[in-house]
Amino acid sequence: MSIKQFLIGTPIESIRESEQRLTKVAGLAVFSSDALSSVAYATDEILLALIIVGTGFLNYSIYVAVMITALMIIVAISYQQTIREYPSGGGAYIVAKENLGDNVGIVAGVALLLDYVLTVTVSISAGIAAITSAFPQLLSHTVFLCLISLCFIMFVNLRGVKESGKAFSIPTYFFIVVMFLLIIFGFKNYIMEPYHPISLKPAEPLSWVYVFILLKAFASGCAALTGIEAVANGVKAFKPPESKNARITLGAMVLILASMFMGITMLADYYHIIPNETETVLSQLSKAVFSKGLMYYGIQFGTALILILAANTSFADFPRLSSIMATDRFLPRQLSNRGDKLVFSNGIILLGFFSALLIIIFNGDTHLLIPLYAVGVFTAFTLSQAGMVVHWRRFKGKHWIKGIIINGLGTITTAVVLCIIGFEKFEHGAWIVIVAIPILVLLVKKIHKHYVSVGEQLAIKPDSFQLQNYTHHSVIIPISGLHQAVLSAVKYAKTLSKDVFAVYVCIDPEATKKVKTTWCKLFPEVSLIVLDSPYRSITQPLLEFIDEVHNDHPNGIITVILPELVPSKWWHHLLHNNTALFIKGLLLFKKGIVSTSLPFHLK
Amino acid sequence: MSIKQFLIGTPIESIRESEQRLTKVAGLAVFSSDALSSVAYATDEILLALIIVGTGFLNYSIYVAVMITALMIIVAISYQQTIREYPSGGGAYIVAKENLGDNVGIVAGVALLLDYVLTVTVSISAGIAAITSAFPQLLSHTVFLCLISLCFIMFVNLRGVKESGKAFSIPTYFFIVVMFLLIIFGFKNYIMEPYHPISLKPAEPLSWVYVFILLKAFASGCAALTGIEAVANGVKAFKPPESKNARITLGAMVLILASMFMGITMLADYYHIIPNETETVLSQLSKAVFSKGLMYYGIQFGTALILILAANTSFADFPRLSSIMATDRFLPRQLSNRGDKLVFSNGIILLGFFSALLIIIFNGDTHLLIPLYAVGVFTAFTLSQAGMVVHWRRFKGKHWIKGIIINGLGTITTAVVLCIIGFEKFEHGAWIVIVAIPILVLLVKKIHKHYVSVGEQLAIKPDSFQLQNYTHHSVIIPISGLHQAVLSAVKYAKTLSKDVFAVYVCIDPEATKKVKTTWCKLFPEVSLIVLDSPYRSITQPLLEFIDEVHNDHPNGIITVILPELVPSKWWHHLLHNNTALFIKGLLLFKKGIVSTSLPFHLK
Repeated sequence: MSIKQFLIGTPIESIRESEQRLTKVAGLAVFSSDALSSVAYATDEILLALIIVGTGFLNYSIYVAVMITALMIIVAISYQQTIREYPSGGGAYIVAKENLGDNVGIVAGVALLLDYVLTVTVSISAGIAAITSAFPQLLSHTVFLCLISLCFIMFVNLRGVKESGKAFSIPTYFFIVVMFLLIIFGFKNYIMEPYHPISLKPAEPLSWVYVFILLKAFASGCAALTGIEAVANGVKAFKPPESKNARITLGAMVLILASMFMGITMLADYYHIIPNETETVLSQLSKAVFSKGLMYYGIQFGTALILILAANTSFADFPRLSSIMATDRFLPRQLSNRGDKLVFSNGIILLGFFSALLIIIFNGDTHLLIPLYAVGVFTAFTLSQAGMVVHWRRFKGKHWIKGIIINGLGTITTAVVLCIIGFEKFEHGAWIVIVAIPILVLLVKKIHKHYVSVGEQLAIKPDSFQLQNYTHHSVIIPISGLHQAVLSAVKYAKTLSKDVFAVYVCIDPEATKKVKTTWCKLFPEVSLIVLDSPYRSITQPLLEFIDEVHNDHPNGIITVILPELVPSKWWHHLLHNNTALFIKGLLLFKKGIVSTSLPFHLK
Repeated sequence: MSIKQFLIGTPIESIRESEQRLTKVAGLAVFSSDALSSVAYATDEILLALIIVGTGFLNYSIYVAVMITALMIIVAISYQQTIREYPSGGGAYIVAKENLGDNVGIVAGVALLLDYVLTVTVSISAGIAAITSAFPQLLSHTVFLCLISLCFIMFVNLRGVKESGKAFSIPTYFFIVVMFLLIIFGFKNYIMEPYHPISLKPAEPLSWVYVFILLKAFASGCAALTGIEAVANGVKAFKPPESKNARITLGAMVLILASMFMGITMLADYYHIIPNETETVLSQLSKAVFSKGLMYYGIQFGTALILILAANTSFADFPRLSSIMATDRFLPRQLSNRGDKLVFSNGIILLGFFSALLIIIFNGDTHLLIPLYAVGVFTAFTLSQAGMVVHWRRFKGKHWIKGIIINGLGTITTAVVLCIIGFEKFEHGAWIVIVAIPILVLLVKKIHKHYVSVGEQLAIKPDSFQLQNYTHHSVIIPISGLHQAVLSAVKYAKTLSKDVFAVYVCIDPEATKKVKTTWCKLFPEVSLIVLDSPYRSITQPLLEFIDEVHNDHPNGIITVILPELVPSKWWHHLLHNNTALFIKGLLLFKKGIVSTSLPFHLK
């Protein structure tokens, strides 16, 4: 429980305050990078799942995309309800905690935190995939490039980056423009000079295996839904009427997302794109439409840019959510500390650390990471929608029955999708998240229990008002010989109490004699106690002696003064023993004893 | 400068004292494992150097071996002189330091320390090579097996192993017996059923290239000389007359070493052993003589055992030498501390760490390590012999002219060999040692300078006898709010001085008002000072305030009391801020300020 934390109290969201309120156009740019960027990998995931049973099956991608688009619309309408009811910002953690209790809130919070880590990892590796698709010679440096980008984003955020609408607008709108150009020219070329689709529908009627494969493709494609909740978190950032503007922005975002996603998937089908692990579908498609010209590189560059922007969004969201959870005493309180630059530095560093770990473990491979991705997102979706259902029932505001129907539908749909994802992707990595969530929830509850207990122990009790003074104050100076640092220690000790004595552990009788003689000359008024040590231990006799003194004055206090050399250069620390530190460590757990290091400054 | 170090003073060599004095037979076993074990790899190195110009050139190994044997005898006779003059132990560090000054002593000491690290690394990797030669399926686990053996030896030494003559005798004499059996049966079989040596002498007359190759082979084979200095270090361990017994033991050791080395090299030639990287010459030779029976496994086992014993010798020598150098204030003083088990634990751990590092870097490959090996040894040889020449000239004892001639010859020979090794092996790894030695010497000199300066600063000066008391004692308690830990701090502060005040940095005026009111109720007698902080920094206003107080009482002292929560479980530490620690760190470098942590024990 640090002074800083107590003094600052709950951190004030200065960034929030200083933000200019956003218009709908700017708001779309700020909040949509995560959602829109998923176009860069969602189609790949669907096609990669379908190709397992052969290229002829790739035609089904359109049906899968239609289902996902429907799901997008359901989730968006559900979230519009949340925005209406939580105009001050309704993230899954807050909605679930307020309506379904702390435990469910923790689950939603943990799921979201995991989601943010994965957003960073997936976005960066997909962004680097866009670059390596254009420049295959960089393919062998994937992990290195991912880590470099991660470090760059992390340090930019540590230095404090403002979520400025303008700065965000450029890459986002650039991406939207190039995507629509790609789609328009793609369809135009296709109509002018149609590729003849290979209609290799499976010979047999749809068996269970095919259903299974279709569900797998659906589960994979659901990664397209990540980032939809971003607008709901940031309602307050919009110009008034905030709620209405936010809802319109959310609607527009999903419309753009859905058209881009459907367009890309359809074109991938028409152009017979065969998915592979080294070149993205988007790269293949833009090559087919524009060949390898300026437009191609523009699309790859725009894709990489919006993906990095998506990672950047998580670097704003993760520290913010973890600081809210830390203030609620669910996470280490260091996460609610603002650094020098007013950002939650610890949260940023933590997010960077875990993302780097995942990039290294999964070799920066987007396809390996996606299966982990959607579980967290859909857990948060489901719990947030379920929270809204309870909210409607409890408060019965305007149109509450319509609200229950919409959010109820949202809950059921997202819950079903969550089950499909958990089942289909279990062995491909979803199990990691399914195992991690309960472990993290338990950890969070342990942390909370500790903080509650500390809070109780630290509370000022009524009997505190009759504070009794210590009956006695003994000061002990353990010495290892006679030198200047000891002189300083004695000088200081004399200001503390009249009951001062030095303690010397005798190993070598000759040396002891010498120390005794000099001591009497230097400090005739301070007694020197010599302790025997048959086993040459320093600490044992010292601790025993301190215990004795403590027993003599059970209601007194003992100060142990340890001279400490303070070197002027950092590496000099390595040249000095840390016995004083060791003794301090031992004394820390003894009651009624205070140990003080007396610094002696070396030149 | 820790208490423990000061109290213990220069460590007493208890092990030395408790050792039983050794007979010549036991002494041979104790001191020869390092030297004799080099038979296991020296012939391999010669043959591997010669095979570069073709198998026909392998016949020259015998000439190289003769030269190395001659060198052995010169070095042995030189060291017999050292033993005569330094009956209390004459390691290269001591002889060089006493006769040639501190700087040369440091070079010799650093060279020896490097040599010990390399002895451990080479012995363990050669020991594992003996095992993998017998069981090639283990070859891919070489590094792992090396590290396991290293850890085992390290922990045995940390627990404290006595250099007992008896325990050492068994593997050493076992090795000597199996080696002579191998040599005797080898020659017998050869005479009964001679292999016809392929006398493929090079067609051309000896060109410079061949001279170069021969010198390379000679330089490689010089690894056979490591460990010869061991007897000279441990003269005191022998029964009286110590000096004479030690000299006889050294003579016997070199005789055995030379015959084994010559025998193995000759047999390798007669049996047409072709050196390779995966099976040792010794393994091939014993297969050829005994085929793969019990004797073969006996030889491999005996070889592995004596090599591990050789590594163990370094684990006694390195900590001992580094403790002597630490006592001379050339190395960090922690190296002169004895651990709980009376061994120099820090030296053992350091040696283990560096050896593990080398094993990992060089993949546990003996052939890659050998080029690094001999530079350190021959540096120490040369400096030690040169020191002896100066010693003879200075003291002019009995037979001093004979001494100068012998040690002079030793100096020149080893110096020439050192140059050959440095030149021939430079690009194969010797450069690492040649670069490392001056860097380490500079480091050692920096360390020494620091200790000398600290010693001067800590010395009791005449004016220390008129110790002036502090004119004033102010106690400051920075608080972050009102809780039980603050109450304890105030209670303690009141025993220290009458001039106590609490300091609170105001961030939120509301909270400040509340703290003020409660404070007045709790401690009407202690004043609370509220500091403004426009930039919400806690430390800045606090440090400024402390400076002000310091300026008010320039000859006074200030104690800053920081309440510190002491959690009951280790992981709880992660849940608390370390602002108190941070403030302590800042205050450490200010003069006239003592910071005290007041522990508050959590349940």
